[in-house]
Amino acid sequence: MYLTVTLNTALDITYQVPRLRAHESHRVTDVAERPGGKGLNVARVLAALGHETVVTGLAGGPAGAVLRTLLGEAAGVRDALVPIAGTTRRTVAVVDDSTGDTTQLNEPGPLVSATEWDAFCVRYEELLADADAVALCGSLPPGLPVGAYADLIRRARSARVPVLLDTSGEPLRRGIAARPDVVKPNAAELAQLTGTTEPARAARDARRRGAGAVVASLGAEGMLAVTGEGAWQAVPPEYVAGNPTGAGDSAVAALLAGLASGEPWPERLARAVALSAATVAAPAAGEFDRTTYDSMLGRVAVAPRPAVALT
Amino acid sequence: MYLTVTLNTALDITYQVPRLRAHESHRVTDVAERPGGKGLNVARVLAALGHETVVTGLAGGPAGAVLRTLLGEAAGVRDALVPIAGTTRRTVAVVDDSTGDTTQLNEPGPLVSATEWDAFCVRYEELLADADAVALCGSLPPGLPVGAYADLIRRARSARVPVLLDTSGEPLRRGIAARPDVVKPNAAELAQLTGTTEPARAARDARRRGAGAVVASLGAEGMLAVTGEGAWQAVPPEYVAGNPTGAGDSAVAALLAGLASGEPWPERLARAVALSAATVAAPAAGEFDRTTYDSMLGRVAVAPRPAVALT
Repeated sequence: MYLTVTLNTALDITYQVPRLRAHESHRVTDVAERPGGKGLNVARVLAALGHETVVTGLAGGPAGAVLRTLLGEAAGVRDALVPIAGTTRRTVAVVDDSTGDTTQLNEPGPLVSATEWDAFCVRYEELLADADAVALCGSLPPGLPVGAYADLIRRARSARVPVLLDTSGEPLRRGIAARPDVVKPNAAELAQLTGTTEPARAARDARRRGAGAVVASLGAEGMLAVTGEGAWQAVPPEYVAGNPTGAGDSAVAALLAGLASGEPWPERLARAVALSAATVAAPAAGEFDRTTYDSMLGRVAVAPRPAVALT
Repeated sequence: MYLTVTLNTALDITYQVPRLRAHESHRVTDVAERPGGKGLNVARVLAALGHETVVTGLAGGPAGAVLRTLLGEAAGVRDALVPIAGTTRRTVAVVDDSTGDTTQLNEPGPLVSATEWDAFCVRYEELLADADAVALCGSLPPGLPVGAYADLIRRARSARVPVLLDTSGEPLRRGIAARPDVVKPNAAELAQLTGTTEPARAARDARRRGAGAVVASLGAEGMLAVTGEGAWQAVPPEYVAGNPTGAGDSAVAALLAGLASGEPWPERLARAVALSAATVAAPAAGEFDRTTYDSMLGRVAVAPRPAVALT
């Protein structure tokens, strides 16, 4: 099975308003709630692709309870979240129906105690025993050590479970030093990590720091992978309009499946790019459009980048 | 005891953000939650003034459960809310720390079934047996008959319990026809009801429609009361800066206590104006500053309005 870890889960709330005006009062015309946090999105996509998938991480309080209820109703994802005393954060996306623009309000995460972190690590080790691959996703809530992902990567390596890391900032820097198999930063995260804005150069730098492979998402220009077996860039065959929320999480789902199966890198990248585009094309944030995925998969252009292949 | 009715309770959430910009992403720096809906605010003020107070109305779903937990922690207010299958609405107030301005997002209320309304009416009748006065507060959630307040007013009159109505629109129009002892519209609500923007004229009109007394809130200009015993205007001694949220609910608390005790109208109005001002002066929305209340109470100017005294 595939395991995804979301330490800072979120209850994602979407409000529709006819027109958003700062400092005024608004009647919300529609309310939608779904379980959120990057690893939960990754798990939903993996389950939709037919993979047995388990989610773990931390959840608590009233928002955590709603999240777990909604997760229990989602097809194919098994809930192995660890309870905490604090309250899972909410995110509120306010969609302005007059323009389609979204205003985002993100609550701070719950304070996690050392005891809760220890309990999580015990559960994580149990779950690793059955995992074919694990994805570590998103930000760290307050209270966790900044090296939390580095710790989880070392435990996965000890258990011989391939591990993918998708985070940013200092947790990414510390995590890379613990030698994950794959990291998936976007161009901005990679630049922040390495100090260089040229993605191929930055990806080589990240590999030197410890990442087995670096897959950088380049937005509409697709993805760049710098790996021990070579370097490739994959580009979608056409521009897809829509909502980019969750596109990166869909790419992680494809990369995790490829990591577990040992599929060649060009195929992994093609799947990741097609699945990202199919997510942008889906009407609901964080879902993917299967017709777009099927039609695009064979048409993603994957080209070697020999100049950056070896470091 | 005093009974307050809130059919459309709300979980009031306040977010602090450094600066709100439409169509951008924001990190919320502080989250506060409290039980909301006009009747719950009225009850909190009554309890703070030392009165035995019971709240009833409708609550359900995860937000309703949080609301009831928070209500249980509030001093002096007894929870007699009736459960419903739908989910209590949330209101989100986003406070921009750079300006102090608030952007408000109000979810729609839950759909209430006829069976749930019947169950509420049974509970309401039981509670009326011990009530010295009852306040009916706020909007009606979807599914309730537009004459719901009229029905509750008739039941209160049958039980010989004095009744105050604080709502707007068609529920106010229908409610007034059922002859409540007091209605407390603001100037805009009164104008909408009667078609005239001159408050004294509009208040006389509302009395002719069935209200025993009409107390119109005029913002910084205080309050105008048109009653069977005379008409008065009460004006605060000085301008008070602050947050006006809940000021009207504090006025209702004062008017309800005065209605139950039979205190003369000038004293009732002085209390209502002082308590409103003390609510504006309090740092948290919906609380009141006792020092302001005590200092202002003896200094509210109450003058007869003989021209509008009798209709």
